[in-house]
Amino acid sequence: MKTTGKKSFSIHFWKSISSLIFQILLISLFIQTPASSQIEGRKTIKIPDILGYQTLKCDFHIHTVFSDGEVWPHVRAEEIWLEGLDAFSITDHIEYLPHKSDLQIDFNRSFELAEQRARELDLIIIKGAEITREMPPGHFNSLFLTDVSALDQPEVAQAFEASVQQEAFIFWNHPGWRQPNEVPIWYDEHTQLYQQKIMQGIEVVNYKSYYPLAFQWALEKKLTIICNSDIHSPIQMAYDLAHGEHRPMTLVFSSERSAAGIKAALINRRTVAYFNDLLIGEEKYLKALFEASVTVLNPEITFSQAKWQPLFIKNNSEIPFKLVRLSEPEPPFQSPPELTLEPERTMRFPVEGKTDGLTGDKTLTLKYRVENLLIAPEQGLPVEFKIKAIFE
Amino acid sequence: MKTTGKKSFSIHFWKSISSLIFQILLISLFIQTPASSQIEGRKTIKIPDILGYQTLKCDFHIHTVFSDGEVWPHVRAEEIWLEGLDAFSITDHIEYLPHKSDLQIDFNRSFELAEQRARELDLIIIKGAEITREMPPGHFNSLFLTDVSALDQPEVAQAFEASVQQEAFIFWNHPGWRQPNEVPIWYDEHTQLYQQKIMQGIEVVNYKSYYPLAFQWALEKKLTIICNSDIHSPIQMAYDLAHGEHRPMTLVFSSERSAAGIKAALINRRTVAYFNDLLIGEEKYLKALFEASVTVLNPEITFSQAKWQPLFIKNNSEIPFKLVRLSEPEPPFQSPPELTLEPERTMRFPVEGKTDGLTGDKTLTLKYRVENLLIAPEQGLPVEFKIKAIFE
Amino acid sequence: MKTTGKKSFSIHFWKSISSLIFQILLISLFIQTPASSQIEGRKTIKIPDILGYQTLKCDFHIHTVFSDGEVWPHVRAEEIWLEGLDAFSITDHIEYLPHKSDLQIDFNRSFELAEQRARELDLIIIKGAEITREMPPGHFNSLFLTDVSALDQPEVAQAFEASVQQEAFIFWNHPGWRQPNEVPIWYDEHTQLYQQKIMQGIEVVNYKSYYPLAFQWALEKKLTIICNSDIHSPIQMAYDLAHGEHRPMTLVFSSERSAAGIKAALINRRTVAYFNDLLIGEEKYLKALFEASVTVLNPEITFSQAKWQPLFIKNNSEIPFKLVRLSEPEPPFQSPPELTLEPERTMRFPVEGKTDGLTGDKTLTLKYRVENLLIAPEQGLPVEFKIKAIFE
Amino acid sequence: MKTTGKKSFSIHFWKSISSLIFQILLISLFIQTPASSQIEGRKTIKIPDILGYQTLKCDFHIHTVFSDGEVWPHVRAEEIWLEGLDAFSITDHIEYLPHKSDLQIDFNRSFELAEQRARELDLIIIKGAEITREMPPGHFNSLFLTDVSALDQPEVAQAFEASVQQEAFIFWNHPGWRQPNEVPIWYDEHTQLYQQKIMQGIEVVNYKSYYPLAFQWALEKKLTIICNSDIHSPIQMAYDLAHGEHRPMTLVFSSERSAAGIKAALINRRTVAYFNDLLIGEEKYLKALFEASVTVLNPEITFSQAKWQPLFIKNNSEIPFKLVRLSEPEPPFQSPPELTLEPERTMRFPVEGKTDGLTGDKTLTLKYRVENLLIAPEQGLPVEFKIKAIFE
Repeated sequence: MKTTGKKSFSIHFWKSISSLIFQILLISLFIQTPASSQIEGRKTIKIPDILGYQTLKCDFHIHTVFSDGEVWPHVRAEEIWLEGLDAFSITDHIEYLPHKSDLQIDFNRSFELAEQRARELDLIIIKGAEITREMPPGHFNSLFLTDVSALDQPEVAQAFEASVQQEAFIFWNHPGWRQPNEVPIWYDEHTQLYQQKIMQGIEVVNYKSYYPLAFQWALEKKLTIICNSDIHSPIQMAYDLAHGEHRPMTLVFSSERSAAGIKAALINRRTVAYFNDLLIGEEKYLKALFEASVTVLNPEITFSQAKWQPLFIKNNSEIPFKLVRLSEPEPPFQSPPELTLEPERTMRFPVEGKTDGLTGDKTLTLKYRVENLLIAPEQGLPVEFKIKAIFE
Repeated sequence: MKTTGKKSFSIHFWKSISSLIFQILLISLFIQTPASSQIEGRKTIKIPDILGYQTLKCDFHIHTVFSDGEVWPHVRAEEIWLEGLDAFSITDHIEYLPHKSDLQIDFNRSFELAEQRARELDLIIIKGAEITREMPPGHFNSLFLTDVSALDQPEVAQAFEASVQQEAFIFWNHPGWRQPNEVPIWYDEHTQLYQQKIMQGIEVVNYKSYYPLAFQWALEKKLTIICNSDIHSPIQMAYDLAHGEHRPMTLVFSSERSAAGIKAALINRRTVAYFNDLLIGEEKYLKALFEASVTVLNPEITFSQAKWQPLFIKNNSEIPFKLVRLSEPEPPFQSPPELTLEPERTMRFPVEGKTDGLTGDKTLTLKYRVENLLIAPEQGLPVEFKIKAIFE
Repeated sequence: MKTTGKKSFSIHFWKSISSLIFQILLISLFIQTPASSQIEGRKTIKIPDILGYQTLKCDFHIHTVFSDGEVWPHVRAEEIWLEGLDAFSITDHIEYLPHKSDLQIDFNRSFELAEQRARELDLIIIKGAEITREMPPGHFNSLFLTDVSALDQPEVAQAFEASVQQEAFIFWNHPGWRQPNEVPIWYDEHTQLYQQKIMQGIEVVNYKSYYPLAFQWALEKKLTIICNSDIHSPIQMAYDLAHGEHRPMTLVFSSERSAAGIKAALINRRTVAYFNDLLIGEEKYLKALFEASVTVLNPEITFSQAKWQPLFIKNNSEIPFKLVRLSEPEPPFQSPPELTLEPERTMRFPVEGKTDGLTGDKTLTLKYRVENLLIAPEQGLPVEFKIKAIFE
Repeated sequence: MKTTGKKSFSIHFWKSISSLIFQILLISLFIQTPASSQIEGRKTIKIPDILGYQTLKCDFHIHTVFSDGEVWPHVRAEEIWLEGLDAFSITDHIEYLPHKSDLQIDFNRSFELAEQRARELDLIIIKGAEITREMPPGHFNSLFLTDVSALDQPEVAQAFEASVQQEAFIFWNHPGWRQPNEVPIWYDEHTQLYQQKIMQGIEVVNYKSYYPLAFQWALEKKLTIICNSDIHSPIQMAYDLAHGEHRPMTLVFSSERSAAGIKAALINRRTVAYFNDLLIGEEKYLKALFEASVTVLNPEITFSQAKWQPLFIKNNSEIPFKLVRLSEPEPPFQSPPELTLEPERTMRFPVEGKTDGLTGDKTLTLKYRVENLLIAPEQGLPVEFKIKAIFE
């Protein structure tokens, strides 16, 4: 129940010392053994703030044993803290309660049990629930609730109404789930929820699935882009955090670090989905994230002979950017067909400038597309670097 | 001389294809998305069988939400499977039930909920419970129970009696817990339990603590050596499995892979504690484990000039063995003061044999002590390698 | 120049001990510090022997400072040993010697300098060289030479002739190198070398490039499939060995662990290319490697209700096998569209058998294709698992 | 709720497409293969600037094939760049030249060959050499030379004189090397070199050895503290960079990022040794490094009930700080006996403040010693945190 600490503790110790002193020390050593069970600390998610907003890292879809999840609620606060997120919502199912023969069901209870730990850890916790119906309309999360039990209604319309009365923010969960080939279908019921402004957002990513069609709808219909883990198991059974994997999360660009700030940002669609190495969202946000993350260290390059010069690009974020050349630069320049900007690394790339007879300065414009920053389904963000090329 | 780069496979792909084909393919791609949530498979714990027994890897002290643990019971079966163990026991507290306002308490329920998953995964699950009293006598695990609820008694003596009636195997848990400086104290109550043969084993290791004094008692009093995780959280919040850490476990030398085999082995004290890189137990078992793991690849070495020759030693196990020289070999030989045998690696060490005027064969005996195989408190296992040295 | 060892050595030690004893111990401790510079041991490459042959792991294309490489020759032996390979050939360029103003050029010297270390480490070293000409015919490696300097000739034909006189085994290196889009071109010169049986093999993989067309030629023209690193830098600047990456290597199925055995195997085309997670070669070898690596642990499955049963498949090798379903099994069965067999893991997959009214046994045949075992360009190895399904 | 699995992207792809399109695409894919050989980028060493100086990371003791090293000189520049250092010196031996039968010896050549790459990579390269004599006086590095060959002299005194004439900075290398038990001995020769101000610094760390006595001498005699790799092999054969190990380096507190700035800092002893997790140096520098790295996130803590409150401490550096409590805080407070501040993590620790009858504010002073910041041999840096405790 307690810890000893370093593994190799005893090893060196025992070597060369006489037995008597040994025993004395042995006792004094073990006397020192401190109590602790925390094995590691809170990570910092390295994604910059942009456009005057704080970039809050949020997961709005999480389960516990109070519906069909596998952990006690306060574990969810611990996980969120360790992984470096700012805000989360436990959204246990209203209508699906497989543990109800073991657990007294109180729809507000999982929030209560997680809330104290969340406060202690300075995390934002948002009361929520998952309305869980057959498709259509399927599953929806209601956030910013005050009383979850009011959503326990015979008819789905009543559940939505109870949500609206509590001024909830409501989004459609995993729209492709159990649809043929996981392709989402937009039913009349969704048109109705959309036109009544009940449904304000849509999960473009849920757990390990990305729905390009949901992304397209989000852009066309101005729905808020949402990206969640929908985690049921302990988080580390689903994501290899120790090797740098992260849960899917919604980046929320908020004017303050608070639930109110998040709610305002969600309503105003200031979000980006962060899924594996993909960022999915509107061009203005992806462009700002890229520019705040990436720096050309040598924006002036001198070409004195007909050869390659190195271009140094630093990526301060934890996201690897994968750039593909959109077009060859104009003569006399050549640049690589691909640039991969590893996270928290400075990369070096060869740039050619043929110097035959040239003198003076020229502007070299490098045009690339960032393949993993999606501004539309499978459409990468275009970016440019402008280099001052000096010929001697 | 050039790169393809498996990872960037898709990236290249999108580059050169016309938009139309692209869209068609895109759809077909996402159509294929299969359902799955399992992220990795079952590890094999690389520790050899010895002395005609199977070496079963067991954890006999585990909690769930049904006492003060943090996960639903079937999660424990999943964890045990992934980590490569053979057997486990869920041992929720009888007397400490912090979730009882939320959970209907049935003392047999956590076993029931884990049992089906355990069978499906071909794991041995043993019904158990933790008798949880103030010190003395402290906490005890009863294993191989048939009805846990019979242990819910006002007096601790009654709980032991109910265990004995069910022919349980009973051991003392974390004997140093909450004692001054974590040093265990043997009270009269323990003498009584010991003399009545109620207490048959003792945890020499619990969670992150090793109790040298408990080990000494186990050797002197012929108590079974036990090593458990006492895990409350999801396992990966306590152990960094992804980087090769493992939970504390009891190695049980069993004539068959069954609960009955384990029970017989426990009664006959055929166990070793496996904690971090330490093996703790009787010399006969540690010696057998070492010899079944380690091979000298070149037991004949030819010294033709006055110089070092390499000695190659292979370690097939997952345990790093840390050897310290007990004494210098006899002239004309010299050997390194330390040998570290990395897990699943062949190591090379320099051995010197001065050849001045020598011819013929000589036996080189290397005497070391394995610092992390403890045959008594802080006493490493002595080992010898015999090398045939040939002088030319 | 010497080592102290464990980092945390001092930390715990200093804590609670009086200054006097401390100083005494301090001295005795530092006295123990051993000398060593080797940081890790030799890995075992986990790929099974097949068809009565030993599977030798070989790299036949390696450079040193004696042509345009970056390390002293004996480093190559150390690298090969650490990585677990059995055999290698240093193949410095004959015609390209950028360090010749610093180094006295002796074409046999890099072999000499590596040979002693190779013997000490029980590695097979094969004398070789790279004939380095403009395309056509390009670059060729000659192996099993006795005198490299005889290949230093004005005309490429003379270099080939000198090789043939030494009974060399000759293969075409990186056939796509510097060709448009890296696609190899077969010139008349190659036809001539092929018809004269001078060219007996071809690099299907070189460094980070795989040439599908070269693979197709190898199959059609019965050329030996070769896969090499062509390493110039220290190996760990090119491959992340610490995270499990490996250099490209040729698996040679040899009747003995010797240069002669390798030569016979090369002549008889008993090879497979091992590149990242890909195995590339003839179906008979890939099938044997798969079958020697993979085991179904439960070849009999009982379906007692209409639900999924787990299928357990163990992969003993270090290669992850990626299987895609070729066709759905016959009713009443269903199996997953994909199976990924992680290296050295047991995986679990759901198999469905609808039991409506069924009793007795049925054979369930699972038909998959192993996507990363290529028996022809981009054609995976077909495999079948036969399961006895028992309905109760 | 479903998976896509980035990795298996290509796999899915091939499944559903007709063979014809497949072949066409296949060709286009392989056509795209780009050229690249750089596998990763430059790391940033996360150690803060202090006291108005830049913290430059330097290695002043490095070998190449031009003495007894194993790599070509430009490799050293590549290694330094990847690892994130700012400055290095190649210091090949003057008197020990094992490759001289193969290499034309020119003492300035290894610098020349590394210099171009160093400039290209924006690294500071300092011309140096190792005077290599029997003990006493042993080995010495001369830095900031203009002509290394002038040091090639019959007598060691002449070599020193040639160094002094070039205004070199000279330090004693690995003073414990080949001394009994690696304990350095200060000979008359050293007194002489010291009194003549020829020897200005001393290696407190060399390769894998730390010499506490050399550290003591440095403090007492005001010699500059130096810490170097003395690397002979490729760097990754000695240090597991991929898992976060780093070479020993000297942290130089310099007013500018230049060779001149480094020289001034060395002369003025503005250095700290950085070896594994140890920082070794004068208290003023270690204190500044600690304070610039570590922040208490909640310097005000409210105790409203008699229980533990969390203290959050953030470590922005890459160095794990290991703190041991110097004394218990005054009543009513208790704090943990140890605090480990993991690199780039926020840690949480329990702090107890018994609230019986207390109101108002109190100052809680936490007194610890940082075990791995050595301000004298085996003496950790004392640090204090002041917390405002508010009782309600």
